[in-house]
Amino acid sequence: MSAPPLKLALLGCGSVGSQVVRLLREQADDLTARVGAPIELVGVAVRRPELQRDAEVPAELLTTDAAGLVARDDVDLVIEVIGGIEPSRALILAALENGASVVTANKALLAEDGSTLFAAAEKAGRDLYFEAAVAGAIPILRPLRESLAGDRVTRVLGIVNGTTNFILDKMDTLGSGFAEVLEEAQALGYAEADPTADVEGYDAAAKAAILASLAFHTRVTAADVYREGISEVSAADVASAREMGCVVKLLAICELREGPDGPAVSARVHPAMIPRSHPLASVREAFNAVFVESEAAGQLMFYGPGAGGAPTASAVLGDLVTVARNRLNDVRGAGESAYADLDVLPMGETETRYHVAIDVDDRAGVLAQVAQTFAAHQVSIQTVRQEGHGDDAQLVVVSHRAADSALAATVDTLRKLDFVHDVSSVMRVEGDF
Amino acid sequence: MSAPPLKLALLGCGSVGSQVVRLLREQADDLTARVGAPIELVGVAVRRPELQRDAEVPAELLTTDAAGLVARDDVDLVIEVIGGIEPSRALILAALENGASVVTANKALLAEDGSTLFAAAEKAGRDLYFEAAVAGAIPILRPLRESLAGDRVTRVLGIVNGTTNFILDKMDTLGSGFAEVLEEAQALGYAEADPTADVEGYDAAAKAAILASLAFHTRVTAADVYREGISEVSAADVASAREMGCVVKLLAICELREGPDGPAVSARVHPAMIPRSHPLASVREAFNAVFVESEAAGQLMFYGPGAGGAPTASAVLGDLVTVARNRLNDVRGAGESAYADLDVLPMGETETRYHVAIDVDDRAGVLAQVAQTFAAHQVSIQTVRQEGHGDDAQLVVVSHRAADSALAATVDTLRKLDFVHDVSSVMRVEGDF
Repeated sequence: MSAPPLKLALLGCGSVGSQVVRLLREQADDLTARVGAPIELVGVAVRRPELQRDAEVPAELLTTDAAGLVARDDVDLVIEVIGGIEPSRALILAALENGASVVTANKALLAEDGSTLFAAAEKAGRDLYFEAAVAGAIPILRPLRESLAGDRVTRVLGIVNGTTNFILDKMDTLGSGFAEVLEEAQALGYAEADPTADVEGYDAAAKAAILASLAFHTRVTAADVYREGISEVSAADVASAREMGCVVKLLAICELREGPDGPAVSARVHPAMIPRSHPLASVREAFNAVFVESEAAGQLMFYGPGAGGAPTASAVLGDLVTVARNRLNDVRGAGESAYADLDVLPMGETETRYHVAIDVDDRAGVLAQVAQTFAAHQVSIQTVRQEGHGDDAQLVVVSHRAADSALAATVDTLRKLDFVHDVSSVMRVEGDF
Repeated sequence: MSAPPLKLALLGCGSVGSQVVRLLREQADDLTARVGAPIELVGVAVRRPELQRDAEVPAELLTTDAAGLVARDDVDLVIEVIGGIEPSRALILAALENGASVVTANKALLAEDGSTLFAAAEKAGRDLYFEAAVAGAIPILRPLRESLAGDRVTRVLGIVNGTTNFILDKMDTLGSGFAEVLEEAQALGYAEADPTADVEGYDAAAKAAILASLAFHTRVTAADVYREGISEVSAADVASAREMGCVVKLLAICELREGPDGPAVSARVHPAMIPRSHPLASVREAFNAVFVESEAAGQLMFYGPGAGGAPTASAVLGDLVTVARNRLNDVRGAGESAYADLDVLPMGETETRYHVAIDVDDRAGVLAQVAQTFAAHQVSIQTVRQEGHGDDAQLVVVSHRAADSALAATVDTLRKLDFVHDVSSVMRVEGDF
C-alpha cells in the first residue's frame, strides 16, 4: 500500500477514454488495493481539448501533444484508445521504447501489424495487453491465452460485431430487408453513418485475426482472413434459414484444419446459417458471444456486451491492473506466442457446407440433374427439399462438407443450367443439424 | 526451450488425474512451448495402485506414499485432485512449505479452510491456483480475479452443479417428479448413489463461497453460505413456474448488498424461479453457467461443461501452465485478495422475492385478507393471480423484494389462516420480469 504511485498516460478520450477516467476515479481505492500501489493519471492526449467530455477530466491533464506525453520519463503505463493505424502505432512503439507497459483496445492495428508491436514489447521487456480489442467487455483473450493453455483449441466461432448482429436479429424477428433495418440501426445509434467497416465485415475480420493468432499460436493478420459482409443477405435468405430451423449470423470462424502440409489454420468472416439450438443462435440484438471448442474442455461460450464505452473501459482496466502489478513486481506477463507457426489455408481449400435455393422449371428430371451437378464437383448432398410447383418450383439443397472452391464452382454451374431460373439464396452453414 | 524440466507430482489419479496424465503426454510439445520448459511427471500418488486406470500411467511412477512424494526435494509443482479435506489439506500445506507451487480442484477444502492454504502460499512465496474448483472447464475464476479487476462486480448468479441442473431440466421438460428423475440421473451416471452433496446443495454452496470470496475480495466460507437443496422441489412448483413463464434452477447467488454497516455480501444457494428469457434459463442438462453483473462491463455469461474428467483436467492444466511459467520466472501470480473484508449478511436480512401458491376457500374477501397478511409483514405484492374455483381455488402471489425473514414470516402466517387449505408452493424468484 505504501508503494509510490504508478504514472499513467491516457491516449484518446472519446467514449472509452472518458469511461476509463471515470472508473480510475471512482474505483481508485479498489484499484490501489488490487495493484498494490495507486495509479496516478498524469496526462490525457486529445485532438480537441475544447470538447465537452462525459467524465470531468481535469483540464490541466489535457494535452494535444501525445508524442510528448509518451516521451515523459516518469510514465510507467500507457493506455491507447485512439484507434486506427497511425498515430497509434508510432505512439505505442514510442511508449514501449520509453519503458512503459501498454494497454490498447486497437483491433485494427493489432490485426494489421501486431508482430511489430509484439516485437517491440519483447525487446523492451514490457507488457502489451489488449483484451478490449475483441468482444468489448467479454473476457475472451485471457481465457484463450491462459485458461486454455493446457488444452488444444480446435475451433472458435464468434459473433464479434454488434452492429451486424443487431441488423440480422431484426431481419429475423421482423422479416424486414437489410436496407430498412440498417436505417433503423443508424437511427438508434447501433450503426455508423458510414457502416462499411461493420457491415462489410472488416471489423469482424480484424477480431478474427486476433482470435486465430491466440487460439493457434500463429501469426494471422487481417489480410489472411477471408471476408464477406452482410449487405447481400436478403429477406429471402433469412426466411430460407427459418424454414430450416436456422438463423443467419455473421460469424468469425477460426479453425484448426488438416492442410496439405499438416495442421493449418482457417480464418474467415462470413454470414452463415446456424441451427436455432446452437448456443450462438440465441445471441440477440447488439450482444457478442464467442463459442470455443477444445479437445479436453469441450464447448465453452463467453457472452456479453461487445462494445460501448463502459464495457470496453472495464476490459481496459482489467488489463491495466495486471500490467501495473507486473510493473510493480518488475515482471512480464505471457507475451505473444507464435511458436506453432501454422499455414493459413486459402478460402478455396477450406471445407464448408452450402445451403443453396434454386428456382427451377417444374418438370421431371430436374432434381436428378441438380444432384449430378453437385456430384460432378465432388460435393455430396445432405438434404434436398422440393418446394412449390409451376413457376414457384424451388429446390433447396444442403451439402455435406466440401472444399469451398468446389461448392462455389457448383453454384456457378447451376446458374448456367437451362432449367434454372435463378439461384435465389446461397449461404454457408455452420453447426450440426 | 533449453531450460531444465520442471518436476511435477500428481496427487490422485481418478477420472480427473488420469486425464491430466493423458494431456501431459499428448500435449507435451505444446506445453513445453507455452511454459518455456518441459514438465516432467515424477510421481503419482494413489491409494490403490492395483486399479486399472484410463490413462496408461507408467507403473514406476505410482506410489501410495503421497506425503513422501510431496516431500521430495526435486518437486517444483504439485497437482492435487484427491478431493475432500484430509489428507488433501496436509499434503497441500506440506507441498507449499517444501517450495512447490500447487494447483488444486478441491472446492470443499477451499470453501472450508481456504485462508489456511492462502496464508501458506503467501508465506512460501508460491502460487496456489484452483480454476477447476468451480464450474469445471469454464474459465470463471481467472476472469473474476483478473479480467474484472478494474471493475466492480455486483452480482454472480451461477448454475454450478450439473446433477441438480440435469434433474430440474428433466422435471421441466418431462413434467416428472423429483424422485423419478433422480433415479434416471443415477442410472445415467449424472447423480451418485448417495446424491446428498449435490441434491442438498452442499457442492454448490462450496462453489458459492469461492465465487463470493473472489468477486468481493472478502473471505467467505461454506458455513457463511445459506443453503437449500432441490429435494423439496415438486412437480407442482415446476408447473407453477411454467405458468409464470419461468423455469426452476438451483442457483448459487453472490451479491453485493447494502448492509446495516455499509456494503455487505449475500451468499446463498437455493432453488429459484427465473424467467425463461434470462440467459441462465437456457442452460440445459448437466451444463454449468455463471452469470456476472458488474458496474461497467454490464452482464456477462460464461457457459460450458461443469464437470467430467477431461474438462476438469483442461482447467487444471491451464493453471499448471501459469504456475509453471511463474515458477520458471521466479515470480508469483496474484494471490488471495481479501482486502475489502465485508460483512456477510444472514439470510433473514437478505432481500429476496417470493412466489407463493395458496390453496384457499373460494369465497369473497379471501384475496383481501391475503393481501393484508403480506402488508402486515411489510411485504409489498407485485402480482396476484386467482386460479380455479370451488375446491381448486388458488391464489398465486409474487412479492416485491423484501427481507427474507419477513417473507418467511408471511408464509407462516398464511398457513394459519382458516380459509387457507395449504400453501402448495413457496419459492424464491430471481431476475426481472
